[in-house]
Amino acid sequence: LIRVRFADTDQMGVAHHASYLTYFEAGRVEYLRRRDLSYVEWLGIPVRLPIVELSMRFHRPARFDQQLVVTTWVDKLTQYSIRFAYRVSEVGANEKTYIVKGHTRQALTDAAGELREIPEAIAERLAGPELSSRPENLV
Amino acid sequence: LIRVRFADTDQMGVAHHASYLTYFEAGRVEYLRRRDLSYVEWLGIPVRLPIVELSMRFHRPARFDQQLVVTTWVDKLTQYSIRFAYRVSEVGANEKTYIVKGHTRQALTDAAGELREIPEAIAERLAGPELSSRPENLV
Amino acid sequence: LIRVRFADTDQMGVAHHASYLTYFEAGRVEYLRRRDLSYVEWLGIPVRLPIVELSMRFHRPARFDQQLVVTTWVDKLTQYSIRFAYRVSEVGANEKTYIVKGHTRQALTDAAGELREIPEAIAERLAGPELSSRPENLV
Amino acid sequence: LIRVRFADTDQMGVAHHASYLTYFEAGRVEYLRRRDLSYVEWLGIPVRLPIVELSMRFHRPARFDQQLVVTTWVDKLTQYSIRFAYRVSEVGANEKTYIVKGHTRQALTDAAGELREIPEAIAERLAGPELSSRPENLV
Repeated sequence: LIRVRFADTDQMGVAHHASYLTYFEAGRVEYLRRRDLSYVEWLGIPVRLPIVELSMRFHRPARFDQQLVVTTWVDKLTQYSIRFAYRVSEVGANEKTYIVKGHTRQALTDAAGELREIPEAIAERLAGPELSSRPENLV
Repeated sequence: LIRVRFADTDQMGVAHHASYLTYFEAGRVEYLRRRDLSYVEWLGIPVRLPIVELSMRFHRPARFDQQLVVTTWVDKLTQYSIRFAYRVSEVGANEKTYIVKGHTRQALTDAAGELREIPEAIAERLAGPELSSRPENLV
Repeated sequence: LIRVRFADTDQMGVAHHASYLTYFEAGRVEYLRRRDLSYVEWLGIPVRLPIVELSMRFHRPARFDQQLVVTTWVDKLTQYSIRFAYRVSEVGANEKTYIVKGHTRQALTDAAGELREIPEAIAERLAGPELSSRPENLV
Repeated sequence: LIRVRFADTDQMGVAHHASYLTYFEAGRVEYLRRRDLSYVEWLGIPVRLPIVELSMRFHRPARFDQQLVVTTWVDKLTQYSIRFAYRVSEVGANEKTYIVKGHTRQALTDAAGELREIPEAIAERLAGPELSSRPENLV
């Protein structure tokens, strides 16, 4: 759950489009956490997940103080990259009336920025179900 | 409860100092909500609370993904302005080992930006206890 | 010309990907200004240009204090929307070694958010050459 | 020279107060650059300048696309810290009609975060006049 902060709005009175990238990021970090994968370290090895490409579609505006849900999933997994998909909707809204949809493709690199293959054990966990059941309803 | 987002960090590896102003803002909005005062409307009248002055003291850095608590209170109330005080600490940390402390002084204006006196009924509610008891542990 | 601000970096030591959306925006505003079209008003009529979709490709990282050039052009113009394309490169770099490429598609609406047709006179100017010759090398 | 970006505005139609901290930062980085001191390295030694405290006073709002000048100077220099002062005004405006004034106090630390004494040679340069005369009118 995310609340649109006042600082996220612009003078059109809605959440600025760049804000959604931080909401996507929060969703991605949470997705990994629930699979016991930290955003900066995987099984003791420092990793980086630089964004290689992204796209977004804006369907309706979000407003100040609105409560949003970011739904995140892995929709494609290759040897070197992970494609995350996101849907941002208002809390309690019908699933079809979303606000923003998008995806980001992330490469896997080591701390020095060198491209790395995604280990099979990690790939399975990435595409798998949530491991942590604790409710994590904050960002 | 707030989680430090990756976008909030800078290349020193800590939350950028400007991020705390959005944490303060989240604390302030929540403080008002718990007293049934919306951030943009008070009892049906549109209000604005532009910041007139602010100050912050940084005691220790916050890191990516750290969970923070923002404690907010009104520490001074005059005819035309409200001074909010804030303390940001790590969840579960000793109250004295805070990360950032600060205050903001807000003027009350109408939608056109004209200075307005704070109505007494509002002043009482501003300085008073929480009215909403629902747990609001997200931002 | 844009300089990567310290606040734009993240703990990977590079400009955070969301920063580029503000660089794109600066490029877009400048593109319109050079055609004597303001970002919020066209020939006396208030307009809005909400983003309908966007995409970005990241080729290499930008670092703190690096000087960037944002090249902006209109690559598609329909009855109701404008597609802007952007290329962000380092100042003085070979055109092919860009940092980020992307596009945004903007709808034209009035102040109330209602979709509007792009007037022909505006469409011509949008796709046309720069009118202002004053160097505007700042953002 | 800084232009207020659209992303810097909030739904009150003015530059959000947190934006000024990034303008201050741009002014500070520029101040050091003009004295041949980089923001992240001083004479070959990596340094950090974490903010220890800051304060701001807001006198009038800045609006989208407004051109601002950030005037920066060192107003106090101690053994371990530097206090920068800032004044943000509209380009061409009378010096007294500023928008925001403020200061930040920065500690000097090494890359590991350990407090360091400011070397005398640096202190002199910090408090001294500009060395680079090239016009640096962008941020």
